[in-house]
Amino acid sequence: VRRHRIAVIAGDGIGKEVVPEGLRVLEAVSRRYGFGLEYDHFDFASCEYYLRHGAMMPADWKQQIGSHDAIFFGAVGWPETVPDHISLWGSLIQFRREFDQYVNLRPVKLMPGVPSPLAGRKPGDIDFYVVRENTEGEYSSIGGRMFPGTDREIVMQETVMTRVGIDRVLKYAFELAQRREKKHLTSATKSNGISITMPYWDERVEAMAPQYADVRWDKYHIDILTAHFVQHPDWFDVVVASNLFGDILSDLGPACTGTIGIAPAANINPERVFPSLFEPVHGSAPDIAGKWIANPVGQIWSAALMLDHLGEREAAAAIVSAIERVLAEPALRTRDLGGPAGTIACGQAIADAV
Amino acid sequence: VRRHRIAVIAGDGIGKEVVPEGLRVLEAVSRRYGFGLEYDHFDFASCEYYLRHGAMMPADWKQQIGSHDAIFFGAVGWPETVPDHISLWGSLIQFRREFDQYVNLRPVKLMPGVPSPLAGRKPGDIDFYVVRENTEGEYSSIGGRMFPGTDREIVMQETVMTRVGIDRVLKYAFELAQRREKKHLTSATKSNGISITMPYWDERVEAMAPQYADVRWDKYHIDILTAHFVQHPDWFDVVVASNLFGDILSDLGPACTGTIGIAPAANINPERVFPSLFEPVHGSAPDIAGKWIANPVGQIWSAALMLDHLGEREAAAAIVSAIERVLAEPALRTRDLGGPAGTIACGQAIADAV
Ligand SMILES: CC(C)[C@H](C(=O)O)[C@@H](O)C(=O)O
Ligand SMILES: CC(C)[C@H](C(=O)O)[C@@H](O)C(=O)O
Repeated sequence: VRRHRIAVIAGDGIGKEVVPEGLRVLEAVSRRYGFGLEYDHFDFASCEYYLRHGAMMPADWKQQIGSHDAIFFGAVGWPETVPDHISLWGSLIQFRREFDQYVNLRPVKLMPGVPSPLAGRKPGDIDFYVVRENTEGEYSSIGGRMFPGTDREIVMQETVMTRVGIDRVLKYAFELAQRREKKHLTSATKSNGISITMPYWDERVEAMAPQYADVRWDKYHIDILTAHFVQHPDWFDVVVASNLFGDILSDLGPACTGTIGIAPAANINPERVFPSLFEPVHGSAPDIAGKWIANPVGQIWSAALMLDHLGEREAAAAIVSAIERVLAEPALRTRDLGGPAGTIACGQAIADAV
Repeated sequence: VRRHRIAVIAGDGIGKEVVPEGLRVLEAVSRRYGFGLEYDHFDFASCEYYLRHGAMMPADWKQQIGSHDAIFFGAVGWPETVPDHISLWGSLIQFRREFDQYVNLRPVKLMPGVPSPLAGRKPGDIDFYVVRENTEGEYSSIGGRMFPGTDREIVMQETVMTRVGIDRVLKYAFELAQRREKKHLTSATKSNGISITMPYWDERVEAMAPQYADVRWDKYHIDILTAHFVQHPDWFDVVVASNLFGDILSDLGPACTGTIGIAPAANINPERVFPSLFEPVHGSAPDIAGKWIANPVGQIWSAALMLDHLGEREAAAAIVSAIERVLAEPALRTRDLGGPAGTIACGQAIADAV
């Protein structure tokens, strides 16, 4: 039988509550579809680890998880004890960068039972992907501060975009669009305001488009694009964006479909040289951590993206369909969706449904 | 009688159609409230000017409009003939920077007669301001390209934030919040990802907050903040943001209130050393230019912001109230709002209503 080795990192806060539900559903689906999953659990990439060791991860973290087939990740961050830019840059951002997970793929889909804040939209109306560049761009580590503590204080941070970095994520996005029914790619830009890097981004899109003649493409400046997400979410099929713009669009998109509480994300190294990482879009949610009321759907949907990446297509589809059936049941929804179910009850229901 | 000297720049596209309606309403209200307005019209800061002169503006543009009391601006841009980053950086961005209009103030208000794309929201539910830093930050002109035309091609652009630049816009925002009923300030950040400049932004907010003890403040990362705009627009009172984040939020906010077609913007030099500039948020809209169907409300509302800045408070309030009454009449709305009225009919109706 096929076997996949998974590195499991629950992280902080509700990460520790929703990851077990993801595993529960993975167990159910692997039995049903006849493949094996082996798990190794790691306690690093958490703020608790940081407080004990003074670093978010051990020096040999790459060796410890670098040969796994995938990383199943919960959430990281506990701002009360560790500032976000330390906890995130010391873990999640490291994974993305060191494992060259240069595609961040996030489905935006209006699901049954999840009321959209947008008037008159129903399941089927909103169904697209955000493809986010995940290693460079605005998230650079180059920059610094001068004249600290004085009135002349100044901080600078460099946005860095490379031809290699842009072209490979555009290629992924064009190919994804090619495989979809609408074959429509939208590029997020801001070349009218961010006048050096973003015109270059546009240039690369234009240079690449002729190779994908069957894909219809357009571009919008990020300001009006966020407006279109709210006013015309049905316009979109595949949206490709820089690191920062993709970050924004992949929270805004799920918000338009009712909640970021159920949205999943795949951090992909398409060449499979390194393991890819699968995580919910939501964070560690300190405000509800420990209450076992967190919605596990984002984590479980991430498991589906992981199986898809590992080639277990049918099993992945079975999870998504199970999620849809469970969300359609008011009694099985968690509190954030107006239901009575706790984290475990909701996870168990999805496991039963697969 | 009080007199104000206004530099009028219609610019491109629908700018030339909506600016006359702004002037029509200004005329009506100045007669009614007994003050004088003198206009000087300028044809620069338009793509037509660029095509004739090879520059967006004459060398002495600052002398020509620098001593006016305000600039009443339409829209600039005609991407078919002049790339946006040339037309915008050669005009609008110059004004903002050279006239030190460091506050970009944009009201976000759900108006009668304008259906919101958000389910269940009615006039009164959404009513806040976006205060955008308007001269530095992500809109820097520092950066460049290396290894052009090769696989090693790389572009870099520097985000530059200064203590002076951040503190003065925060001061404006805190003071605005102080004058409002809810006294609530929200800061847009992304200190978990943009790890050098944005933590500094947060630092300055924290340093300044104690001076405004009567203002309740909070902060959100820009990704989740865009989600909250859609899911909880009633949470906000005054939102302060960097140049780029403010740009995004002040298109998204108006979209949540139904249309960016009616939103106004004030580019303010609070010290009044230089003229401030008032413009609609919408652009030159090449797709509908020449049809005289553009909605003039954004331009007219900008006239209200201008009068407010010039100290004509009552007249400004009269314009906003006239806009509200006209928008409530289906027959007086323009096509973008489902009505039959053309640009002039709508403008005339508002002028009659003041
Ligand atoms: C046209 C563009 C350069 C401008 C900006 O990004 O500032 C516009 O979007 C605005 O908000 O006024
Ligand atoms: C936590 C933060 C650094 C991260 C990001 O900005 O990439 C998160 O918002 C995300 O989208 O995964």
